[in-house]
Amino acid sequence: HYGETELEDMVGIVTGLAWTEVGGEILTIESVMVPGKGNVKSTGKLGDVMQESVSAAFSYLKSRCLSYGIAPTLFEKHDFHVHVPEGATPKDGPSAGIAMVTTLVSVMTGIPIRRDIAMTGEITLRGRVLPIGGLKEKLLAALRAGIKTVCFPKENEKDLKELPSTIKKSLNLVPVSHVDEVIGYALVRKPQPIEWEETPVGDTVSGQKQSPSESSLPH
Amino acid sequence: HYGETELEDMVGIVTGLAWTEVGGEILTIESVMVPGKGNVKSTGKLGDVMQESVSAAFSYLKSRCLSYGIAPTLFEKHDFHVHVPEGATPKDGPSAGIAMVTTLVSVMTGIPIRRDIAMTGEITLRGRVLPIGGLKEKLLAALRAGIKTVCFPKENEKDLKELPSTIKKSLNLVPVSHVDEVIGYALVRKPQPIEWEETPVGDTVSGQKQSPSESSLPH
Amino acid sequence: HYGETELEDMVGIVTGLAWTEVGGEILTIESVMVPGKGNVKSTGKLGDVMQESVSAAFSYLKSRCLSYGIAPTLFEKHDFHVHVPEGATPKDGPSAGIAMVTTLVSVMTGIPIRRDIAMTGEITLRGRVLPIGGLKEKLLAALRAGIKTVCFPKENEKDLKELPSTIKKSLNLVPVSHVDEVIGYALVRKPQPIEWEETPVGDTVSGQKQSPSESSLPH
Amino acid sequence: HYGETELEDMVGIVTGLAWTEVGGEILTIESVMVPGKGNVKSTGKLGDVMQESVSAAFSYLKSRCLSYGIAPTLFEKHDFHVHVPEGATPKDGPSAGIAMVTTLVSVMTGIPIRRDIAMTGEITLRGRVLPIGGLKEKLLAALRAGIKTVCFPKENEKDLKELPSTIKKSLNLVPVSHVDEVIGYALVRKPQPIEWEETPVGDTVSGQKQSPSESSLPH
Amino acid sequence: HYGETELEDMVGIVTGLAWTEVGGEILTIESVMVPGKGNVKSTGKLGDVMQESVSAAFSYLKSRCLSYGIAPTLFEKHDFHVHVPEGATPKDGPSAGIAMVTTLVSVMTGIPIRRDIAMTGEITLRGRVLPIGGLKEKLLAALRAGIKTVCFPKENEKDLKELPSTIKKSLNLVPVSHVDEVIGYALVRKPQPIEWEETPVGDTVSGQKQSPSESSLPH
Amino acid sequence: HYGETELEDMVGIVTGLAWTEVGGEILTIESVMVPGKGNVKSTGKLGDVMQESVSAAFSYLKSRCLSYGIAPTLFEKHDFHVHVPEGATPKDGPSAGIAMVTTLVSVMTGIPIRRDIAMTGEITLRGRVLPIGGLKEKLLAALRAGIKTVCFPKENEKDLKELPSTIKKSLNLVPVSHVDEVIGYALVRKPQPIEWEETPVGDTVSGQKQSPSESSLPH
Ligand SMILES: [Ca+2]
Ligand SMILES: [Ca+2]
Ligand SMILES: [Ca+2]
Ligand SMILES: [Ca+2]
Ligand SMILES: [Ca+2]
Ligand SMILES: [Ca+2]
Ligand SMILES: [Ca+2]
Ligand SMILES: [Ca+2]
Ligand SMILES: [Ca+2]
Ligand SMILES: [Ca+2]
Ligand SMILES: [Ca+2]
Ligand SMILES: [Ca+2]
Repeated sequence: HYGETELEDMVGIVTGLAWTEVGGEILTIESVMVPGKGNVKSTGKLGDVMQESVSAAFSYLKSRCLSYGIAPTLFEKHDFHVHVPEGATPKDGPSAGIAMVTTLVSVMTGIPIRRDIAMTGEITLRGRVLPIGGLKEKLLAALRAGIKTVCFPKENEKDLKELPSTIKKSLNLVPVSHVDEVIGYALVRKPQPIEWEETPVGDTVSGQKQSPSESSLPH
Repeated sequence: HYGETELEDMVGIVTGLAWTEVGGEILTIESVMVPGKGNVKSTGKLGDVMQESVSAAFSYLKSRCLSYGIAPTLFEKHDFHVHVPEGATPKDGPSAGIAMVTTLVSVMTGIPIRRDIAMTGEITLRGRVLPIGGLKEKLLAALRAGIKTVCFPKENEKDLKELPSTIKKSLNLVPVSHVDEVIGYALVRKPQPIEWEETPVGDTVSGQKQSPSESSLPH
Repeated sequence: HYGETELEDMVGIVTGLAWTEVGGEILTIESVMVPGKGNVKSTGKLGDVMQESVSAAFSYLKSRCLSYGIAPTLFEKHDFHVHVPEGATPKDGPSAGIAMVTTLVSVMTGIPIRRDIAMTGEITLRGRVLPIGGLKEKLLAALRAGIKTVCFPKENEKDLKELPSTIKKSLNLVPVSHVDEVIGYALVRKPQPIEWEETPVGDTVSGQKQSPSESSLPH
Repeated sequence: HYGETELEDMVGIVTGLAWTEVGGEILTIESVMVPGKGNVKSTGKLGDVMQESVSAAFSYLKSRCLSYGIAPTLFEKHDFHVHVPEGATPKDGPSAGIAMVTTLVSVMTGIPIRRDIAMTGEITLRGRVLPIGGLKEKLLAALRAGIKTVCFPKENEKDLKELPSTIKKSLNLVPVSHVDEVIGYALVRKPQPIEWEETPVGDTVSGQKQSPSESSLPH
Repeated sequence: HYGETELEDMVGIVTGLAWTEVGGEILTIESVMVPGKGNVKSTGKLGDVMQESVSAAFSYLKSRCLSYGIAPTLFEKHDFHVHVPEGATPKDGPSAGIAMVTTLVSVMTGIPIRRDIAMTGEITLRGRVLPIGGLKEKLLAALRAGIKTVCFPKENEKDLKELPSTIKKSLNLVPVSHVDEVIGYALVRKPQPIEWEETPVGDTVSGQKQSPSESSLPH
Repeated sequence: HYGETELEDMVGIVTGLAWTEVGGEILTIESVMVPGKGNVKSTGKLGDVMQESVSAAFSYLKSRCLSYGIAPTLFEKHDFHVHVPEGATPKDGPSAGIAMVTTLVSVMTGIPIRRDIAMTGEITLRGRVLPIGGLKEKLLAALRAGIKTVCFPKENEKDLKELPSTIKKSLNLVPVSHVDEVIGYALVRKPQPIEWEETPVGDTVSGQKQSPSESSLPH
């Protein structure tokens, strides 16, 4: 039945974890990159918060693309579509943020995502991972779905105390504080950073040296 | 009366199956491709979920067009209109997803769709077919309309047990897990894959080889 | 009073038939073509379904323009405005579809529409005419307005039985199953098909021959 | 007080007549033409029907501009703003249609509008003038405001019977069936038609001669 | 506290007068001009009527810019932002119209606005000043805020009778009927008209001489 | 837990202060600059007022960029995204205005923001700082979060009287009346002004010298 993880590692498909009043649930998130003009579309009956989450994931990735081996020009010549089946089920919340980043990195680098990993965590524009709710229910859902490894926010580590020991033994639980760590665990191989020489802007600037660069922002 | 299938195999017209509180019903879905700039329009009093379904079908097709023999440039130089008569009847739900892909493949390749086939199934961005509701009622409607073959989600196979044997004998029931199989059954001939040489991007990339390609994504 | 048909055959003005709770009514539909960029506007307090009807009529016409003697370039260099007076009266429903096609063909070919004809029928993207409601009331309204000929959906022929014989004698009732037949009856002369040589797309395609053409779609 | 007519004939300012539950009222309508790209804006707390009325007036004028001495290129190089003060008062209805055409013809030709004329009537895309409501109340308001001449729809002539003879003696009542007549009465001099040679479209058309021209449409 | 007038004459900042159920109040209105493409933005929790007021002020200014010494090209190469602090307080109504024009003229000419002047009055597209409500309460608020001069609509002069003589003595009350007078009082120096030679339109016009010019419209 | 300040000074991340019915709270505000076309996006479930606040901050910065060492061309070649985590919590109000300016100056100059500073204050288009509510609660929240310095509106200085002396001793309280002062305190080094030579506009202006310049506006 739907809800089982994929049979092979795939590009652009990642497993998120949702938390509803009836318990935790597996959430498949997928994306494609097609020729276009830099537009991003998100579907799957997503609420405003989850749509903003896609937007934040995309801006984060754009501002840090070189460290993931992604050429800036790749963004402007493609459109991106993030979809969360099942299309008739309303979904919302910010906790799919790191999954959004992961699917986008995968689809833009062509590196598959490990099929036995799941993840939950809000993303900031600097890639920091913020805490989420319902960790226990989400981990139970992951277990039922045959997931082996779960990335979760380091700030949620305190919630592990109340977990049954059976979960702790069966799942490889990976606390993360930055999405860089998630990418390291989730993709079948690590993306290699690239360098990029921007065409210099031919305008006249006197005084202060113009130093900001998208790829040199600390995080 | 309306609801009968067409008298000949046609390009871009496909039979879907709807499930409402009053039972199953035949749903004709049609599309045209006209000169334009890559816009997609959907009409027929469609709800948000069905409109997102058109969107997902379109993105799937765009990301996999070469395997269906469709040149990427065909998208950017045309507009697409998907319409579901009867225009006064509200329609919604994700189960017309594979029918959306089928009508678009047909209209972009010029290959007609078999008039005696119907189909139901949600589509993902990778072409996977997700299960739907109301299979029994939908098959009854197909039978009444003179349909010979019905493609339905493999994950719905368990629902066949409760079907009256009369349906099982009268209909050619084809469980599918990927829309590729649907295209194989529904079009009068199989689209042949093409190769495509993209104009190389003239930007400076050092480090990681830039390998992702829309047409080489695994699925 | 308003509601009477025009005194001469005119370009772009066509008589539709509406059906409201107070009976049938004459509906004048008019359009203009002005220099522009391919936009379509519809006014006259139209509901969503009637607006989608304009959209479907326009897409149909675009995909079949050569058979009506209309050059594809005419679309991209003009804007189109479909208006249904009286502007303060809300109108809705799909049954003006064939009238929408007729006014657009007239305005794009410059061929006047016969002033003593009225029509009702939903349109599909392939030009098929779908059945409508309230045929009897609509025909009575046509009669009162001095109409001589009414095109109506062939699938509504069964409704003729319940018509008073006075209507059947006074009106030339023309059942139609495709909008091509409507154009044949409604315009003062038949548009002549043209041929069109598209500028070949200079892209590299190997494998399958790229055959779909807007003007060769079967219908 | 506001509501009095202007002291001199002005370009682009015209007096309409509104009909509300508290009686008739003078409605000043003004427009400007500024450098731009063909956009039309309407303000003054206008309802949907009155906004569509502006739209219809604009499309009518565009399709018939040569007969008013207006070069087609004037549209694409300017923006237009129609405003109906007083900005805090909601206004709606189609009866300002002929006033919308009049203000636009004035502003595009530079010919002033007679300050002692008022007008009421719905406009169609062919310039036909449709009947309106509240003629008596509107004429009383015109009289109070010092108006000398009122253009009204010919189809409203039957309403003159119930008018007090004092109105009929004090006002020059001009029934009109086409907006051309309105322009003739309202502007201080008649616009002179121009001819226009379109740059021929360099596309390949074979078969039917492509004859439709925006400026040769019958009306 | 906020509400006091500025300490020096500034470019683009003008004092308006609002009238709410709790009395009159000072309203600071400010605008900036930045490099852009001719867009206008208005913020400060403005209602529809006040936003339309900004729009009318802008169109008026565009159509009369030469008389204020503003080059037409200045509009198309900049964006404009009109903001009314305090951002959390809802504001509405048309009476800030002449203040909108004043801030825009100031920011486009670089001429400061006198800090001891306030103003209230609706604006039309020809610059006429229409009457407003709550004059007495507004003048009291101006007095409290240390304002010396107030421009108000000439049509409101009748309201002066009911004013306490203390106000009449303390404030320089300037009735205005056109925004030109407001600009003359409010700016620290009068903008000087410029002339402008438009690039002639190279199109073929025969017949009527094409005379309308944005800068020669009577007002 | 979330709510603690960062461990190092970072580019584009600033601490604001919110005031809700349950007391004061730390509000992290972050932004990124990515290649683009000058668009600004704001996310984090922001209400209309806070979104307008981002808009005002952006227009202020655009109109004064040279004094912060920011080249005008930087705006048109980038997109900007301001995000306020936690994404599921609704936020509104104008008091984050100076924080919005600070994050944008930081991200456009590449100069980090001091991690031990927080700020609250509405911003105007001229950079003036307007008073806010809930100062006491906000300062308590700042104290709890380990903040050392708080910039607040000079017009709120009267509220300091009611503060417990413990707060006044523990926090460095900096009253500000212009955002320039905020930037001076918040960034780890002061941005240096640059000069900029605009490409002269080649249009014909006679009469008044065209003097307004975005970078010479008084404030
Ligand atoms: Ca499920
Ligand atoms: Ca979630
Ligand atoms: Ca049906
Ligand atoms: Ca469905
Ligand atoms: Ca009627
Ligand atoms: Ca209808
Ligand atoms: Ca009035
Ligand atoms: Ca009206
Ligand atoms: Ca105040
Ligand atoms: Ca006001
Ligand atoms: Ca918190
Ligand atoms: Ca706030």
